[in-house]
Amino acid sequence: MRISQLSAESGVPIPTIKYYLREGLLPQGEQTSATRAEYGQAHLRRLRLIRALLEVGRLPVASIRKVIDAVDDENLGVHQMLGTAHYALSPGVEPHEESPDWQEAREMVDQLIADYDWKIEPKAPAREELAQTIVTLRTLGTDPTLADLTPYATAAQTLVQTHEIHKIPFDAPRETTVEAHIIGTVMYGRVLDTIRRLAQESESARILAPQTP
Amino acid sequence: MRISQLSAESGVPIPTIKYYLREGLLPQGEQTSATRAEYGQAHLRRLRLIRALLEVGRLPVASIRKVIDAVDDENLGVHQMLGTAHYALSPGVEPHEESPDWQEAREMVDQLIADYDWKIEPKAPAREELAQTIVTLRTLGTDPTLADLTPYATAAQTLVQTHEIHKIPFDAPRETTVEAHIIGTVMYGRVLDTIRRLAQESESARILAPQTP
Repeated sequence: MRISQLSAESGVPIPTIKYYLREGLLPQGEQTSATRAEYGQAHLRRLRLIRALLEVGRLPVASIRKVIDAVDDENLGVHQMLGTAHYALSPGVEPHEESPDWQEAREMVDQLIADYDWKIEPKAPAREELAQTIVTLRTLGTDPTLADLTPYATAAQTLVQTHEIHKIPFDAPRETTVEAHIIGTVMYGRVLDTIRRLAQESESARILAPQTP
Repeated sequence: MRISQLSAESGVPIPTIKYYLREGLLPQGEQTSATRAEYGQAHLRRLRLIRALLEVGRLPVASIRKVIDAVDDENLGVHQMLGTAHYALSPGVEPHEESPDWQEAREMVDQLIADYDWKIEPKAPAREELAQTIVTLRTLGTDPTLADLTPYATAAQTLVQTHEIHKIPFDAPRETTVEAHIIGTVMYGRVLDTIRRLAQESESARILAPQTP
């Protein structure tokens, strides 16, 4: 298809497509004449992936490039490729290894991971993120223990093992796999957060307002 | 205690305390002389609540005032008071009742709530939020069904019923109850999101990279 049709099918404006081509995020089409190039399904998939990274993941172009490089590097296994996207989606918390509060929180996170026998890279950004949230909870006057975290770990593990992992199309084209993972992580993260608020309202109503018909 | 000690104990600077006093967010102290007022534990609790609403909930002052009014209105039951805080914490999505996509999504949300027999106000903002996320998922080319939502509803219900609802001190002073609820909803929402990413990484490693020692 020509660039105009690629734009129509993807919903991405032609100037934006040309920008992605210049930046190398989108591979060049097949040149059929001096002024004409042909694009295919792979370009459509790539544009969908870029849109997902931009609009769902809200990643800066530099992070998008890293994910795209991982998708293009066929030597990377699917787990490593997904890991690149997964880590890019992290809010990115700086470790504060100097603080004793942070160290204690970080030890709690590592203990949780060990208790659940999870396979997590030592440098996984979610370790830092969770430690930082625990530190913040402390400054708010609550003092979370391991026992306060385990109900969340159990809920997350059940959800991921029984449902989420099965929604990722591992044998689809690499773009499609990464895109599904990004949408799953970010958008269904929002779904879970919202549904949790609904469950909280309902449980509060059930316990505190049983007189309501 | 005097205002200087109130500041030291709460960590809130004196000019900020004076601002809250002028705005009526913090009740006046007991005037002991023309230039001196005494503050007590209730003021400390109120300052903690305001901090939680500001820093954890990131609410604008107008929303904080609504929550404070609900806390001060002893005629409101605890459920209504918590509901005011809960709704204030919502991102606030405008309903798009004109769009057929939105209507279909909204019907799915209502069906989910009915299936789980949840007691949710018809005007609860989380209904709109969830419908909006479903509409966004559609524009991304995925078409979520009720079956895609139920694993999240089950996970959330289990978490709230077996754990979260028991962490709210219902018989504490009203400020303390609301504060615990805000911290629980927002901060443990972050805990859940981060732990879910850890579980995803681990499950991906288990399924896709079993050769790693």
